Amino acid sequence: MRILIDAMGGDHAPEAIVRGAIDAAAEFGVQIVLVGRGEAILKSLSALGLDTLPKGVEIANAEDVVEMTDDPANVVRTRRESSMVVGLRMLSEGAGDAFISAGSTGALLSAATLVVKRVKGIRRAALCPEIPTKTGSTLLIDCGANAECTPEFLAQFAVLGSIYAQRVQGKAQPKVALLNIGTEEGKGTQLQKDTFAMLQKAQDMGILQFVGNMEARDVMSGQVDVLVADGFSGNVLLKTIEGTASFMSGMLKEMFGKNLLTKVAALFCRDGITAFKKKLDYREVGGTMLLGISKPVVKAHGSSDARAIRSAVRQAMEAANGGMAEALKEQVQALNQLTKPQSDETT
Amino acid sequence: MRILIDAMGGDHAPEAIVRGAIDAAAEFGVQIVLVGRGEAILKSLSALGLDTLPKGVEIANAEDVVEMTDDPANVVRTRRESSMVVGLRMLSEGAGDAFISAGSTGALLSAATLVVKRVKGIRRAALCPEIPTKTGSTLLIDCGANAECTPEFLAQFAVLGSIYAQRVQGKAQPKVALLNIGTEEGKGTQLQKDTFAMLQKAQDMGILQFVGNMEARDVMSGQVDVLVADGFSGNVLLKTIEGTASFMSGMLKEMFGKNLLTKVAALFCRDGITAFKKKLDYREVGGTMLLGISKPVVKAHGSSDARAIRSAVRQAMEAANGGMAEALKEQVQALNQLTKPQSDETT
Repeated sequence: MRILIDAMGGDHAPEAIVRGAIDAAAEFGVQIVLVGRGEAILKSLSALGLDTLPKGVEIANAEDVVEMTDDPANVVRTRRESSMVVGLRMLSEGAGDAFISAGSTGALLSAATLVVKRVKGIRRAALCPEIPTKTGSTLLIDCGANAECTPEFLAQFAVLGSIYAQRVQGKAQPKVALLNIGTEEGKGTQLQKDTFAMLQKAQDMGILQFVGNMEARDVMSGQVDVLVADGFSGNVLLKTIEGTASFMSGMLKEMFGKNLLTKVAALFCRDGITAFKKKLDYREVGGTMLLGISKPVVKAHGSSDARAIRSAVRQAMEAANGGMAEALKEQVQALNQLTKPQSDETT
Repeated sequence: MRILIDAMGGDHAPEAIVRGAIDAAAEFGVQIVLVGRGEAILKSLSALGLDTLPKGVEIANAEDVVEMTDDPANVVRTRRESSMVVGLRMLSEGAGDAFISAGSTGALLSAATLVVKRVKGIRRAALCPEIPTKTGSTLLIDCGANAECTPEFLAQFAVLGSIYAQRVQGKAQPKVALLNIGTEEGKGTQLQKDTFAMLQKAQDMGILQFVGNMEARDVMSGQVDVLVADGFSGNVLLKTIEGTASFMSGMLKEMFGKNLLTKVAALFCRDGITAFKKKLDYREVGGTMLLGISKPVVKAHGSSDARAIRSAVRQAMEAANGGMAEALKEQVQALNQLTKPQSDETT
């Protein structure tokens, strides 16, 4: 297996990316292709005390870099030779099995859609982070790729998420829920009402296991495997978790830092504090899957360090092994007969 | 000042309500009218060791009770003699300065709108909880009263929130932000884009101080006084905070309960743990204001105990003192000229 990595994307590129890639190659025995400015990558290697490329690691030169200020919709045209676009082209042409980038989310979404293309019949690609829960994690689909959604998009997200949970996460009968402001049928806006009806039909047809509406309050209890949301409210959900966790961690730090006794208390609780941090640490989870694209694309966190990149490689390998695209074909056809898509084919 | 309280609403009614009302009357020197089944209220009093009504506390008899299973839209008709509807009628007729209920949110919203009526020119009432932040609290408007919103509704919410922050919370120049999935102008769905433009005009006209979009991640940093959202995403925000806080508190409890050393650690951190809990405790804040109604109505938490009711009374007193309705008139007229409301006058 060969994983392509955008060596130039993210706050700590290329150093952190190169280091994470080397770690992953050594640990997982996977072939890594670092896509980016050869010179900068070699410099990062020598900063790590390496004169030559380690076993399993290659470089694919790409002279340009996508900037965070670039218009996402245009990078395929304006940044043809960027590490991101070159990497996606290699993925599309079969020079690798998955692509990882910690660069601009919008640019990656747009370029992956244009270069690697969506799975046939899928109308929108979605960003799917894993939300930490009491029992493990819940896949959120979508968290911001599509601010405006139709019921058809959401029904497709449900299928995408369900198949990912099955094929990649190894969950035999994934439970799918719809994010809503109440659990009863008939809650929410017209979007949720129409989506609820579609998901119930999909359940009746055996396409997925729909367990109904879920309130934001219950997401972290871990009762479902896949949570379907429009990109706007999914984004609000994800970022509220981040904000609340950061707020509470700050209070915790203050609590333990108060005086000598509380500092001793922190020592007593060291294992618990480590477990606590680990549970909420994106670097453990990997990145955010971009589902609906015909080959696996992983968006790594913008501030990814080597450990986050290593986790993203593991995730990309699992996704590439899952064979989602094949499993999707049949289900999407069945679903599309059900949802009668509108004649909207932008992006 | 006279505060009307629905003695029969909430999980712990009437006991907790009666007790909280007595505490509030004693502490704040305010007149309290307990609306509900006289017999049940007297029984609660005697359970507290009281043979007569304490100073400052009266009973207004109402034989019926709104149930959580009642259709909210119909309670004014089907539960005419319920504690909630009788209390609201008394408020409307001037027999009290504010009304508090821990009963069904939907029923309270609907009955308050029908019985007490909205402020002239205001098109929707909104539910406005206070979100705890690093520096105090941020008023969220709306958190679920209106799942479907128009830009006009949101612009009115901004004005309602801003005037509440000024008149009731004593913030001289409240900063108003719009909940969005990015900080740049042009982010979000059409609803956010159109609302952004309207709020900027309102800012130019001196109606309020609009500071732009805010991501959910930054809400708890406390940089704004009022956060405007449609009821759907506001509800997702609020409930995600609740869910994440409960998740993290659970982990914390587990951490401190692990062994003898961690239990000792908990003792060392006792003050910090108390402060931590207090910061996230709805019982300290009071209830959720129902803004846009012509007189102050407070929705207390369904599981309110006596302390929560006491806090809700304090909040109702502040709201009644604020004289919002008068301040609103002028601003709403100015705003409505700006927003050209659609001809939608349902609910």
